[in-house]
Amino acid sequence: MDWTLFFIFLAACGGAAATGVMFSPGQWYDALEKPAWTPPNWVFPVTWTVLYLFIANAGARIASEPANAYAMGFFAVQIAFNTLWTPVFFGLHKMKAALVVIAILWVAVFATTVSFWDLDFIAGILFVPYLIWVSIAAALNFEVWRLNRRGPITT
Amino acid sequence: MDWTLFFIFLAACGGAAATGVMFSPGQWYDALEKPAWTPPNWVFPVTWTVLYLFIANAGARIASEPANAYAMGFFAVQIAFNTLWTPVFFGLHKMKAALVVIAILWVAVFATTVSFWDLDFIAGILFVPYLIWVSIAAALNFEVWRLNRRGPITT
Repeated sequence: MDWTLFFIFLAACGGAAATGVMFSPGQWYDALEKPAWTPPNWVFPVTWTVLYLFIANAGARIASEPANAYAMGFFAVQIAFNTLWTPVFFGLHKMKAALVVIAILWVAVFATTVSFWDLDFIAGILFVPYLIWVSIAAALNFEVWRLNRRGPITT
Repeated sequence: MDWTLFFIFLAACGGAAATGVMFSPGQWYDALEKPAWTPPNWVFPVTWTVLYLFIANAGARIASEPANAYAMGFFAVQIAFNTLWTPVFFGLHKMKAALVVIAILWVAVFATTVSFWDLDFIAGILFVPYLIWVSIAAALNFEVWRLNRRGPITT
């Protein structure tokens, strides 16, 4: 593992992670109707911290591989849409637009996972928890939208 | 040029570009004190459209190069911080935090430009207008913060 490379990829994750700090849940989210299986708020930053360490590690591994063109392209897409989701959901409170963003994010994470797996087994494995978590987050985004689209809270 | 690869990198730029559509200037920005050299609002989306085409083109060129590890790492950092800046400035109206974000973005774009240049002359050239534009945007962010930090508009 090239640690300089790891920290460069971690910096990219830091851009995405900063949205979670700056656009935090707050009153609006707390007041929304949520499904029974919604994880408690503290679970999200803990999970994302672990996931970002995995993502940076996997990115650094694949960056060093030859023939990584598509894998690095998909990586760029997922980090951009990961950074985009939080401001759209928690900043703008646009649950439907956030659903579109997270759908694109899911496809990008899936494509990154598959292309990483092809190049390096460990990098592929490191992306699997991320794919699972984005699946859960997408389901939560969908349910929150469904339960609140006619609710009194529209902003 | 591998066009599939170009469109994957363009999708990553699309994540960053979406912030410009969703977090638009509006009344808050219009009411701020701005330096005399501030470009008119219409210049920004036009410039960014051209820049994103250049960025995607350069990214696709470098992704196909061998030994692109650092270059692709820096690319990931710049696309994440590019996506982050608009929600922080236009969404949260946090001019000082946005200044920190754009400073990191500038370093990331500079590092990407240098590392791209080393691998492929054309890819390096394609990043130069982006570096110039982020320099202008950073100067504007600084000036807007300086001129308005004691102003009546604080949110």
